[in-house]
Amino acid sequence: MIDTTMTNIIRENYTMLFDFYELTMGNGYFLAGYQDKISYFDLFYRRNPDGGGFAIACGLEQIIDYINNLSFSEEDIAFLRSKGCFDETFLAYLRTFRFTGDLYAVPEGTVVFPGEPILTVRAPAIEAQFIETFLLLTLNHQSLIATKANRIVRAAEGRAISEFGSRRAQGPSGAILGARAAYIAGCSGTACAMAEERYQVPATGTMAHSWVLMFDSEYEAFDTYCKLYPNAATLLVDTYNVLTSGVPNAIRAFKENNITRCAIRIDSGDLAYLSQKARKMLDEAGLTDCKIVASNALDEYIIRDLLKQGAAIDAFGVGERLITSKSTPVFGGVYKLAAIEDNKGNIIPKIKLSENPEKVTTPHFKKLYRLIEKENGKAIADYLTVYDETVDESKPLTIFDPNYTWKSKTLTDFYAVELLQPIFKNGVCVYSCPTTEEIRRYCAAQIEMQWDEIKRFENPHHYYVDLSPKLWDCKQMMLHKLIRSE
Amino acid sequence: MIDTTMTNIIRENYTMLFDFYELTMGNGYFLAGYQDKISYFDLFYRRNPDGGGFAIACGLEQIIDYINNLSFSEEDIAFLRSKGCFDETFLAYLRTFRFTGDLYAVPEGTVVFPGEPILTVRAPAIEAQFIETFLLLTLNHQSLIATKANRIVRAAEGRAISEFGSRRAQGPSGAILGARAAYIAGCSGTACAMAEERYQVPATGTMAHSWVLMFDSEYEAFDTYCKLYPNAATLLVDTYNVLTSGVPNAIRAFKENNITRCAIRIDSGDLAYLSQKARKMLDEAGLTDCKIVASNALDEYIIRDLLKQGAAIDAFGVGERLITSKSTPVFGGVYKLAAIEDNKGNIIPKIKLSENPEKVTTPHFKKLYRLIEKENGKAIADYLTVYDETVDESKPLTIFDPNYTWKSKTLTDFYAVELLQPIFKNGVCVYSCPTTEEIRRYCAAQIEMQWDEIKRFENPHHYYVDLSPKLWDCKQMMLHKLIRSE
Repeated sequence: MIDTTMTNIIRENYTMLFDFYELTMGNGYFLAGYQDKISYFDLFYRRNPDGGGFAIACGLEQIIDYINNLSFSEEDIAFLRSKGCFDETFLAYLRTFRFTGDLYAVPEGTVVFPGEPILTVRAPAIEAQFIETFLLLTLNHQSLIATKANRIVRAAEGRAISEFGSRRAQGPSGAILGARAAYIAGCSGTACAMAEERYQVPATGTMAHSWVLMFDSEYEAFDTYCKLYPNAATLLVDTYNVLTSGVPNAIRAFKENNITRCAIRIDSGDLAYLSQKARKMLDEAGLTDCKIVASNALDEYIIRDLLKQGAAIDAFGVGERLITSKSTPVFGGVYKLAAIEDNKGNIIPKIKLSENPEKVTTPHFKKLYRLIEKENGKAIADYLTVYDETVDESKPLTIFDPNYTWKSKTLTDFYAVELLQPIFKNGVCVYSCPTTEEIRRYCAAQIEMQWDEIKRFENPHHYYVDLSPKLWDCKQMMLHKLIRSE
Repeated sequence: MIDTTMTNIIRENYTMLFDFYELTMGNGYFLAGYQDKISYFDLFYRRNPDGGGFAIACGLEQIIDYINNLSFSEEDIAFLRSKGCFDETFLAYLRTFRFTGDLYAVPEGTVVFPGEPILTVRAPAIEAQFIETFLLLTLNHQSLIATKANRIVRAAEGRAISEFGSRRAQGPSGAILGARAAYIAGCSGTACAMAEERYQVPATGTMAHSWVLMFDSEYEAFDTYCKLYPNAATLLVDTYNVLTSGVPNAIRAFKENNITRCAIRIDSGDLAYLSQKARKMLDEAGLTDCKIVASNALDEYIIRDLLKQGAAIDAFGVGERLITSKSTPVFGGVYKLAAIEDNKGNIIPKIKLSENPEKVTTPHFKKLYRLIEKENGKAIADYLTVYDETVDESKPLTIFDPNYTWKSKTLTDFYAVELLQPIFKNGVCVYSCPTTEEIRRYCAAQIEMQWDEIKRFENPHHYYVDLSPKLWDCKQMMLHKLIRSE
């Protein structure tokens, strides 16, 4: 659990952060006598950002906070009354509104794939519907940034990536929670101080161009900085001219002040060329341990190209293209009804048709397994079953493509990990949140379990999310029945 | 002024939302005796999003809140101490840290152009530097969304645009403040309830597909809804099949329940084709006043094309492509040192060179004028001067292209509006924030002042931001001097 007692940060209550239709429907369910109707919603996404092979689920901790804090204030109720469309009995019900249902989710940092539930809610209709907006926005946002950050981290092949993007983030929480997601996905740290204070993401920073401009000369600016921070100094060398001014002045300042943990940062110009020239100058000056940090509109593609061209860069600062996932700034998670319970507690699966076959949902209350090769610990496929099925690891398991069912594979030497964990039971949180650091380590292990073919930036290998025969039959039967009734 | 006493919303204190280097530099300025050095920073941007002709400045109200609330708690100080890089005298100084400087900004909703200051800070170096991150992130985010939303609003040619994107926003504040910016820029409202409670952005909403699925039949779902909301009902007609099921069921429910203010929403399929067919069916049923609302991954280009193809759509719901400005999700505002004062109070202009001529800054403490044709009220050009100059409207004014100085124009029948307003004086807010509604009206008037040529979505006419001769000379002299000294 994150210890929040150390700070006096006042967290916002996001109860009112819902799409208005959640409550017009809620009022309707209430008045139609549906408020106790148990319903099951799956949260899943349909396409990996940037054409990648997977995504990283992130944001569960904020969802837990949100649900634990769900409650309408008197002012909220007064505001809702002023809208003129809610019944007084419903407003009275909202006064003591809490989440009383169950919630299952994959742990943060889990590698996930299109079409599988990364979160499932079982709750009375109003409650399950009400939390939709916040759940989607939180998982959509943080999963997007974690997925993008991990691509950038992988492009750097072990070099540190520092998240620098607060000033270009889409709002304060875009900056703070984005820094958290980026760190979980493998960044070495952030520039955002609040992300460390609140989420223990290591924050670092040295100087801007304005520091250099504030002094009468570049050398004076560097020398002053080295005297202030003799233990470790990173000097920004591109305010005037990297090679004729910045690097020579940095070398002089490092040497005269005996700075041993030193680095320079290049923030403009051709980073491959400048870094190699700078490396040569630093080495010739005996500063072979001096690191070179590069920044300026970087992403996974530019970093990959720079390294291919032999750039002498030890670490990268990445800003706007990470913190907004600029190339794909939307993670299209959706929240769909998968089943309801009748008044005897029988689960009635529900399906949503669509003109677009890709958009047809997978019905029922489900389990999600990851099938893993015993020999090498690599993930083989994911496997969705009806909630009452269990995978028997001691027997061979035949899985098949849900669209081209003649494509099948029989697994023998595997084990199965159930991914959806119980988070809330009857409205009570039963999950102990790992620390940010623990989530980051788990995420790294998750990435390690995937084959390189899945991790290609473009045209990755397709990872299978298969259905058990029972679940496949259920879905087919429902589809045929619906089509016949049209 | 927004009345916040009506709600019990606890606002976050964003003092800690800064890039860490703001404080490593701050500590440095403090220890180097620079803490009282008055400096001038300009906030400006370099390129219009989406290749458009202008942007809309937005976010000032949140900046005012931020500055008014700036203060470090004891926990913040303890956290900063734990970083091990700050001097105790500096930490003691932070304990009573407040903003004591001046701040000028264009009002929210102002049409702005690349290269001109939309905000200027005059303050002791540490303070001016410290607020950089929050100022940039706030203006970058809200200006981005306002600019995008206004493009979408213009594409709809008078039809209402409702902002629907909370679930795809980049974090909670992306949703709430994004809805605010979208409304200011001309959207008719939002789905986000919190945006109304906090910022008076009208929130609306009706039903999701899950409402339809929750009942035994589509008709039962529609009928129930009409009985609950007889004054105005919008029915979502694409859960099963728009033309064979949704529209006929909607017509039946509207008629049987005598709904006069009615609408249908189509959320998938070909919106041009389906809306025309649906219009015909509604008209034939006598429901000529029934509105058709369309949604599904819309933006200005799709809306323009739909209308060109004769789509019978009365209003649009726009989600992810607006709330993230998907096609250009970054507004590249920067914050650059423009001048400092020596210890006699003389203003010393500062300039930042760059390998890229576009990135060279315009030095000095400046005024920003908009020059407007008296005859038609249309904007002619913007005009930057040194702070001590005044435009004399009674005399002809010759303006010239700052790069191709032989291109000039002499204005006679014009008036000049000074755009940068005093917001803080000596740390005290001297500006009375207009209401969200007032900002929205001002924004509409600002758009009206621009020629259609500036408002084209692609390849708009270039709007000039010219420099006064005095400012131009100052910049040229500094450039030549710097280049000579290299």
